[in-house]
Amino acid sequence: SIQDRERTMDSKHQQLFTRYQHTRKLSRDIVEPLQPEDLVIQSMPDASPIKWHLAHTSWFFETFLLKPFLTGYRPFQSQFEYLFNSYYNHVGPQYLRKNRGLISRPTVTEVQEYRQYVDDNIATLLTRPLSEATLNLLELGINHEQQHQELMLTDIKHAFSFNPLFPALADHQPQPQPIAALNWQEYAGGEQMIGYRGTGFHFDNEGPAHPVLLPPFKLATRLITNGELQDFVDDGGYKNPLLWLSDGWAWLQGNAIAQPLYWQQMEGQWHHYTLSGLRPLLQHEPACHLSYYEADAYAQWCGKRLPTECEWEVAAQQQPLDNSGLHLGRLHPHCGTDPASAQATLQQLYGSCWQWTQSAYSPYPGFKPATGAVGEYNGKFMCNQQVLKGSSCVTPQGHSRASYRNFFPAHAQWQFTGIRMADDV
Amino acid sequence: SIQDRERTMDSKHQQLFTRYQHTRKLSRDIVEPLQPEDLVIQSMPDASPIKWHLAHTSWFFETFLLKPFLTGYRPFQSQFEYLFNSYYNHVGPQYLRKNRGLISRPTVTEVQEYRQYVDDNIATLLTRPLSEATLNLLELGINHEQQHQELMLTDIKHAFSFNPLFPALADHQPQPQPIAALNWQEYAGGEQMIGYRGTGFHFDNEGPAHPVLLPPFKLATRLITNGELQDFVDDGGYKNPLLWLSDGWAWLQGNAIAQPLYWQQMEGQWHHYTLSGLRPLLQHEPACHLSYYEADAYAQWCGKRLPTECEWEVAAQQQPLDNSGLHLGRLHPHCGTDPASAQATLQQLYGSCWQWTQSAYSPYPGFKPATGAVGEYNGKFMCNQQVLKGSSCVTPQGHSRASYRNFFPAHAQWQFTGIRMADDV
Amino acid sequence: SIQDRERTMDSKHQQLFTRYQHTRKLSRDIVEPLQPEDLVIQSMPDASPIKWHLAHTSWFFETFLLKPFLTGYRPFQSQFEYLFNSYYNHVGPQYLRKNRGLISRPTVTEVQEYRQYVDDNIATLLTRPLSEATLNLLELGINHEQQHQELMLTDIKHAFSFNPLFPALADHQPQPQPIAALNWQEYAGGEQMIGYRGTGFHFDNEGPAHPVLLPPFKLATRLITNGELQDFVDDGGYKNPLLWLSDGWAWLQGNAIAQPLYWQQMEGQWHHYTLSGLRPLLQHEPACHLSYYEADAYAQWCGKRLPTECEWEVAAQQQPLDNSGLHLGRLHPHCGTDPASAQATLQQLYGSCWQWTQSAYSPYPGFKPATGAVGEYNGKFMCNQQVLKGSSCVTPQGHSRASYRNFFPAHAQWQFTGIRMADDV
Amino acid sequence: SIQDRERTMDSKHQQLFTRYQHTRKLSRDIVEPLQPEDLVIQSMPDASPIKWHLAHTSWFFETFLLKPFLTGYRPFQSQFEYLFNSYYNHVGPQYLRKNRGLISRPTVTEVQEYRQYVDDNIATLLTRPLSEATLNLLELGINHEQQHQELMLTDIKHAFSFNPLFPALADHQPQPQPIAALNWQEYAGGEQMIGYRGTGFHFDNEGPAHPVLLPPFKLATRLITNGELQDFVDDGGYKNPLLWLSDGWAWLQGNAIAQPLYWQQMEGQWHHYTLSGLRPLLQHEPACHLSYYEADAYAQWCGKRLPTECEWEVAAQQQPLDNSGLHLGRLHPHCGTDPASAQATLQQLYGSCWQWTQSAYSPYPGFKPATGAVGEYNGKFMCNQQVLKGSSCVTPQGHSRASYRNFFPAHAQWQFTGIRMADDV
Ligand SMILES: [Fe+3]
Ligand SMILES: [Fe+3]
Ligand SMILES: [Fe+3]
Ligand SMILES: [Fe+3]
Repeated sequence: SIQDRERTMDSKHQQLFTRYQHTRKLSRDIVEPLQPEDLVIQSMPDASPIKWHLAHTSWFFETFLLKPFLTGYRPFQSQFEYLFNSYYNHVGPQYLRKNRGLISRPTVTEVQEYRQYVDDNIATLLTRPLSEATLNLLELGINHEQQHQELMLTDIKHAFSFNPLFPALADHQPQPQPIAALNWQEYAGGEQMIGYRGTGFHFDNEGPAHPVLLPPFKLATRLITNGELQDFVDDGGYKNPLLWLSDGWAWLQGNAIAQPLYWQQMEGQWHHYTLSGLRPLLQHEPACHLSYYEADAYAQWCGKRLPTECEWEVAAQQQPLDNSGLHLGRLHPHCGTDPASAQATLQQLYGSCWQWTQSAYSPYPGFKPATGAVGEYNGKFMCNQQVLKGSSCVTPQGHSRASYRNFFPAHAQWQFTGIRMADDV
Repeated sequence: SIQDRERTMDSKHQQLFTRYQHTRKLSRDIVEPLQPEDLVIQSMPDASPIKWHLAHTSWFFETFLLKPFLTGYRPFQSQFEYLFNSYYNHVGPQYLRKNRGLISRPTVTEVQEYRQYVDDNIATLLTRPLSEATLNLLELGINHEQQHQELMLTDIKHAFSFNPLFPALADHQPQPQPIAALNWQEYAGGEQMIGYRGTGFHFDNEGPAHPVLLPPFKLATRLITNGELQDFVDDGGYKNPLLWLSDGWAWLQGNAIAQPLYWQQMEGQWHHYTLSGLRPLLQHEPACHLSYYEADAYAQWCGKRLPTECEWEVAAQQQPLDNSGLHLGRLHPHCGTDPASAQATLQQLYGSCWQWTQSAYSPYPGFKPATGAVGEYNGKFMCNQQVLKGSSCVTPQGHSRASYRNFFPAHAQWQFTGIRMADDV
Repeated sequence: SIQDRERTMDSKHQQLFTRYQHTRKLSRDIVEPLQPEDLVIQSMPDASPIKWHLAHTSWFFETFLLKPFLTGYRPFQSQFEYLFNSYYNHVGPQYLRKNRGLISRPTVTEVQEYRQYVDDNIATLLTRPLSEATLNLLELGINHEQQHQELMLTDIKHAFSFNPLFPALADHQPQPQPIAALNWQEYAGGEQMIGYRGTGFHFDNEGPAHPVLLPPFKLATRLITNGELQDFVDDGGYKNPLLWLSDGWAWLQGNAIAQPLYWQQMEGQWHHYTLSGLRPLLQHEPACHLSYYEADAYAQWCGKRLPTECEWEVAAQQQPLDNSGLHLGRLHPHCGTDPASAQATLQQLYGSCWQWTQSAYSPYPGFKPATGAVGEYNGKFMCNQQVLKGSSCVTPQGHSRASYRNFFPAHAQWQFTGIRMADDV
Repeated sequence: SIQDRERTMDSKHQQLFTRYQHTRKLSRDIVEPLQPEDLVIQSMPDASPIKWHLAHTSWFFETFLLKPFLTGYRPFQSQFEYLFNSYYNHVGPQYLRKNRGLISRPTVTEVQEYRQYVDDNIATLLTRPLSEATLNLLELGINHEQQHQELMLTDIKHAFSFNPLFPALADHQPQPQPIAALNWQEYAGGEQMIGYRGTGFHFDNEGPAHPVLLPPFKLATRLITNGELQDFVDDGGYKNPLLWLSDGWAWLQGNAIAQPLYWQQMEGQWHHYTLSGLRPLLQHEPACHLSYYEADAYAQWCGKRLPTECEWEVAAQQQPLDNSGLHLGRLHPHCGTDPASAQATLQQLYGSCWQWTQSAYSPYPGFKPATGAVGEYNGKFMCNQQVLKGSSCVTPQGHSRASYRNFFPAHAQWQFTGIRMADDV
């Protein structure tokens, strides 16, 4: 049994295996309230069926750990290499991304068997002596699955939003609350270090750490709320080209967008679809699911701007890492006004909404992707994307860092993305 | 129980109810070997998820029978009126057709409950006195479900064909056979009656029956085979614009089509995807899944032409109705060379492949759609479609008629459509 | 000189040459008020720049007469074979249709030189003995250029309509007039002959003449007016799916069409763009530039229908051919209420607006396209098109016939197309 | 006359007016060899007809100088405000960009009259006392017209390339030459100033000047040649996904791109379209018309990278400004190997090809767009664009600066864009 094998691992392997198991279990917990039908659907090319995420995260371990390092390993199904490869050209060709929602087989049950088979073999692998590089790949695989856990939740939210029955995955029913004042915290700027400098896990795009020069700046102490965003909507923000980036205005027109994603008027009141169903909009909650274009237009409307990624990171370095994140009963951004967090200078750095920065996603000076397939993990996306900092209410706990660089195209709305404003001093 | 109620029906109602039950059971039998995951996927806007077909056929009975005629009937779920309306503007707005594959809820189980609920209430309805018109609507609903049974099978075949695992629904493994000679049968033409003239069920588009004048003509006694179509492919048929209708050539180029649908080369041999999986192409089987453009180009290549719908119908009137059609263990076009059919003059009129005609789908002289919603059943599609005659290997038994007018756009390939050639005398 | 050569022709050649010259001059007259800039623009793939029409009509004579039949003929420019081939695959590949508006060279002047060169060589050709078949090709070329003359005017109207300066090509300023009553003329139907039966020029698609059986029917004695169409618009005709063919409603939605082409509201009054500029809509004028979808929806709204092509032709056979058509000072549909035409039973059969029929464009029984390239003239378009009968205010005079079969896809709006209603008796 | 008015200007106004006249004349000189037909065509939404450029540059002076500052000024034509507004939402709505090629009127002659009218009134304006801000707007207008002069030439090259006659605008016939070795120049990095620091004209996006920290780096002393790029092509560079950014590979596939823009094989030899017609590819000339994706893939293939904008600017600051640029007889990138430039450390910084940088186009710290319409000049494009440095062979002389920030989307190919490689030290 897996338990037997676990007992024979050395303690470092055991520790890693515990984290592996914990992460694998979270994937199972996420899908537990869902039906097989829910796991198959794909609402757009950018999103994937949950079943695909479940299989692909196992494919990652199979491809990068089991096939190269477990002697005698027999692949679960030879065509999975093709079916569940996301974008690794070093590994081989990939099934067409936009058609992932057409793949009813393997069934959910078969994918669960695949997951079990991979778990079993990872346990065997960890009873063997392994190089540091191999263990690093396992840690990468764990973090990779955590990233896909966030995507499972954003993707199913997007898919469910097309259903007039508005299915719910959680049962979180918050009440109206008072809105905290929007305060500003000043920072001196100057020469500062950016990028990951510790000894733990981090993605390659977080390094090399390097100095930067910053002018003085200030950041809003909390995220923009639904109420504030509604003021923008009511003021004609979505109809005024003067507020928008040129590409943003073209995106708005081309897609006939007139309000934030998931918002809809019902009987004269704004509602929005949440993972607990369709609900009246609460004024005090953080505005969420905004594209970079919307975030930038909102900031323009206020006469402010969005932070750079360096500004955000420098400010975050001065605060302890707040370990909020995914709670399966909530799945909704928090307001950061609970007593614990109230002492923090900047609220909602983590675990509420990702925060758009005005920084395009570019390599840090001296960045070199790893050789081989895992070198495709981050580097090849460094074009036409904006950096997001922090983390969201669907980011697994323990997955946040000040140096973390998330990235999405400027039009992406379906992630839990919000606005922290910045300004020059 | 339904059985109790059945006993209280008068015999005419009983008879109809038996046919109702038989048809409803066939839908259940069709999906029996499938998994819930299979029932959700939609491969293109023209196709629908099988789950949607299961629900929509029930919606038809609920909307046109139960709601108007069963006093006190309570709809199963109020939003199903919107979700499972296909195209009846008289009934109300419809959920976006191309997004049907995003609807994971209601689940398959819930749709089965919906079906049971409708069955139950139809049984109740039939214990009451009902007008002729109401009974006709019930018969229309039965025939409507039969049409959707054919679509369930063509739609799942299309969806499965995108899966590199090539899932199978049946296990039909035919062997190579000799190919019957292609003979021609002559017909004198002259003044002939066209359209349905009996007293049984028929769709509104089959009438009014009316006389037409035809020149003499001849028809091929069997359908074109895979082997004959392969000759066309090998001769560069898909690369020669001189053989194609102008729209057909544009369709070929615009979609980069170089061989028939479901055909693929593997190790130097043509294979095709069937509902029993990927198989080597058998030369003697009827060529299938051809668009009108392909059928017409093939006929051009032979120096022949396709029949008109009148020619086909006049010829078919002279033969007994052959009751071949859907067998769940086969799901593949038959060759018409079994002893029973060998006596027939024209082979494979029914139950193998639908046969394209050169006739555009137009109203017969004096055609008037029914008033109200069911008037939308056929009439509003009388533009940009070609008539197909006969029936196919996935048409339920008992659903074929010489006067039957099936219709699809010229580019449609995913139905079981083949070629019967015609020529002037 | 051409005059010298003309004198040496025999009288049959002379007669044909006179018609040739007359037609060629009309093309020059059409473009006379235009600027070089106007002749280059292409507003959509379905339309062509006028310069292209001028060159292509010359290409037709060069390709089908001069190259094969004039010994020693040297092509004007070798690449014109490719550049000005419309769709003749027998001749060779064609420059991409949608890019015709990118071809600034040859300039207008060079195209005029090309035209002169072709004229010159045609004159030479006609001094030689020529077969009947060759003379028929010349007559085809003349009729071909007439068809393109109509297209020059419809295409430039479409292109000019995008210009907010609304350029004018004519100066026709009609005044409001009383509207003639809409009367109906009955026809007995029965066995009737359809198709061209004379000895003059006709297109291949007008034959073979053949008998058809028609039920009794009636036709409106005049075309539908702007005022009547406006009633349809005001009654929400463009917003009511119940009136539209399924494809028509999809076309309306997909293109956000809410009123007839070229109509626009200005200061609370409907205006429309005409070839004499933007003008207030006159109630009594024939409604024009309607797609088949719009024509059919209008007829539905009236509880009537459109005629079949046979009905229209049978009715037209009973009236003398009315030689109205293109007047360069008008370029706008006439009302048919002038004294001369008032005696005719059916007004506006010709020279006002083409009249949509409910007949799809199909081959007549026994139709065989000519062998070789000119066989591509008509036959390959016999799919997805509706037949139009009559002719329009931009059809050159002398180009109309009762048996004429014009054809366009159901969505086409930019031709001068109107509505004559029909009904069963 | 304009000459009379010029004599009454004060000397500062006179100087500016001389530059104004010089720039206006260059626009006339550019179009001198072209025909009216050439000036109307638009090959893609990103490009504009030359006639539009001629009018729009005049519109700029009319809108931002004459209307606000010349008392009693009467606009030339009221609808030009709409027709020739490019993207200034402060000014008002704009004619649809992608339809600019449909505007045949005003004719070329009328646009020339418009230009003369504007010139005339600018001369009058300059006889009046004007604020510094107004004079700055005039200088902006001059630089704006220079930018459009470059676009006129890139846009007509793109449009001409669709013509199989390959029209020529110049007659430049270079010969093969030896290829200079590719050397590298090292730079120490450290804290450096970036951005415009002088007192002359510069665009708002070049400031504020600010310090940056750079690691040591090196730059190639010349641009990549056609021969080197051909090695990449021959090595399968366009078929190997491992070399490309993710978006770049998608762009390649989606547009079926297999070689550089304007390249085509003829009789086994690479040719490319130039503004002197179709010519055999010369190995020693700078590779040109590359997208950022192609430039990046080439650098990957070499194991190198592209420079950042800061690296390029720091290196360029150490060299005198080389005033090469547009020569109407050449219109083709130079090789930088003439004796004069050979002494420069870095060849071809200016006047050959724009040089892609890996820097996304973002605001400099503290950047604030001007208030009002001219604030739309640069700021609203700061998303989804890459910075290009230097200038090209179609950049007007005197328009280059080390701090100049040109920007285009990563897929843009039709500008004269090449590759200068960089690497870490
Ligand atoms: Fe992944
Ligand atoms: Fe249906
Ligand atoms: Fe033509
Ligand atoms: Fe401009």
